[in-house]
Amino acid sequence: MIDPVFLDTPLYRCEALESRLGCAVSVKLETANPVRSFKARGTELVASLLAGSGQQAVVCASAGNLGQALAWSGRGRGLDVTVVASRRAPAAKLDRIRALGARLELVDGDFEMARERAAAIARRDGVRLVEDSLDIETCEGAATIGLELVEAAPSFDAVLIALGGGALATGIGHVIKALAPGVEVICVQPQGAPAMTLSWRERRVVTTGSADTIADGVAGRFPIPAVLDDLLLVADDAVLVREESITAGMRLLLDHAGLVVEPSAALGVAAVLEDRDRFAGRHVVTVVCGGNVDMDAYRRWTGG
Amino acid sequence: MIDPVFLDTPLYRCEALESRLGCAVSVKLETANPVRSFKARGTELVASLLAGSGQQAVVCASAGNLGQALAWSGRGRGLDVTVVASRRAPAAKLDRIRALGARLELVDGDFEMARERAAAIARRDGVRLVEDSLDIETCEGAATIGLELVEAAPSFDAVLIALGGGALATGIGHVIKALAPGVEVICVQPQGAPAMTLSWRERRVVTTGSADTIADGVAGRFPIPAVLDDLLLVADDAVLVREESITAGMRLLLDHAGLVVEPSAALGVAAVLEDRDRFAGRHVVTVVCGGNVDMDAYRRWTGG
Repeated sequence: MIDPVFLDTPLYRCEALESRLGCAVSVKLETANPVRSFKARGTELVASLLAGSGQQAVVCASAGNLGQALAWSGRGRGLDVTVVASRRAPAAKLDRIRALGARLELVDGDFEMARERAAAIARRDGVRLVEDSLDIETCEGAATIGLELVEAAPSFDAVLIALGGGALATGIGHVIKALAPGVEVICVQPQGAPAMTLSWRERRVVTTGSADTIADGVAGRFPIPAVLDDLLLVADDAVLVREESITAGMRLLLDHAGLVVEPSAALGVAAVLEDRDRFAGRHVVTVVCGGNVDMDAYRRWTGG
Repeated sequence: MIDPVFLDTPLYRCEALESRLGCAVSVKLETANPVRSFKARGTELVASLLAGSGQQAVVCASAGNLGQALAWSGRGRGLDVTVVASRRAPAAKLDRIRALGARLELVDGDFEMARERAAAIARRDGVRLVEDSLDIETCEGAATIGLELVEAAPSFDAVLIALGGGALATGIGHVIKALAPGVEVICVQPQGAPAMTLSWRERRVVTTGSADTIADGVAGRFPIPAVLDDLLLVADDAVLVREESITAGMRLLLDHAGLVVEPSAALGVAAVLEDRDRFAGRHVVTVVCGGNVDMDAYRRWTGG
């Protein structure tokens, strides 16, 4: 059900990064597709199922990438797509959602406010609400990345996964733990938006009053209980990284891998930078999960 | 014989570019692999055949990308690789050739001087000289890009291909003309290094006294007669573009596609920028053939 343009993405060793990071590094690149993030793997499933059952509309809240992906997937299947996002989301993401033909509604609050508003629209209009990380299709979509990692007959020791709502981590994590249980599943979140990591550590939902990070794609505050339950089954660790490590990771990926990534996609490299001893001599895969950035901010972050 | 890490590269529509270029644009991305260019498709063939026949050493001249690719392919097969390059080649390319374990010999002149020196080394040591674009494996490697384009059941009208020595253009061009003859094969070269384009236009080898372009990957001066013969069979057109169009193309690919490309890889976009009317409303594929750049120069070119 997933358009092949989103599947079998590049997976390759990036030796130029390795001397800087002190370990073997493979990149799983999820940015070279029409929406520049992994999210369409899940929205392709959602939209296929909806179109197959005769539905005509769908709504989601989005930090920016899910909305683009749902807009793309819905457009191709004749679905009427509404995306609710925070007015503070990167303009590049909002512009692309509109350009893909979705109706975009902006809220003044953060991502959690967008979630509330999207739910209200779904109730009002009686249309399907896509809840990222809660809806199984969003996790199954991400899980196809795990299948591709395992199929590559990997020699790697650990997978570094950006942790936000949890779809990416639980999706990949379930596959890894089922098919390659010796590989460590490490989730990485910004210190400034630590709700899910704190929840994982305390094994109960911990919410935070605010989120303060440039990694807009993972800046949630209210972990979903069912997703936490899943994460507790599959994550070997959840770590928090500093903002300066995220920008350092973005710079390394630009200067030594030629990759333009959004802050969330640099979390894995940031985790290695903050704990080199842990990874020394090991082989890690980092999932470069998205590349949608406002270029002015990107140039500032990467010192261009 | 080609490591799958170099095959089945991303091919996708890039809508954010389309409003800027006035036509539908698909990208065939050859930078997301261990050597960040398409060249390893050919060197994998070369190295496999050499290793299979018991050879132990190989030498090539390189503008920078072939050398990296041959170093990578030779290392995996126990071959002793020597690369001859111009001292003026981008430092990033030279550093990576060394890092991949090849012996690097620098000459004071340009790429054509490197070709002479590599041939002398091959004669002296009795080892195989890999001549880019002349040796059929280098063209066959590039031709696998053409196969992937055709297998994608394309709706596109034209393929834009960087033209240097000619391996990429003749390799892809032969496949397109055999299997999708309605698709226009358009070669693009910088005005500052026009030897092969002038040769194609005059249907005889035309050499130039110097090459002056930032597109280091295609800056040859002495077209190979047999390659010109091939190019005359498969190219529908060969166009020349200005340096400012190349940098504008690099900026567009960065700002609207999130792609870090070397100047040669922006030639296709440059060609559209210089002749919008020709491409208006059509669907073009541009082969993003390499991403090895010195970041200081890159930031200067892209106004970062």
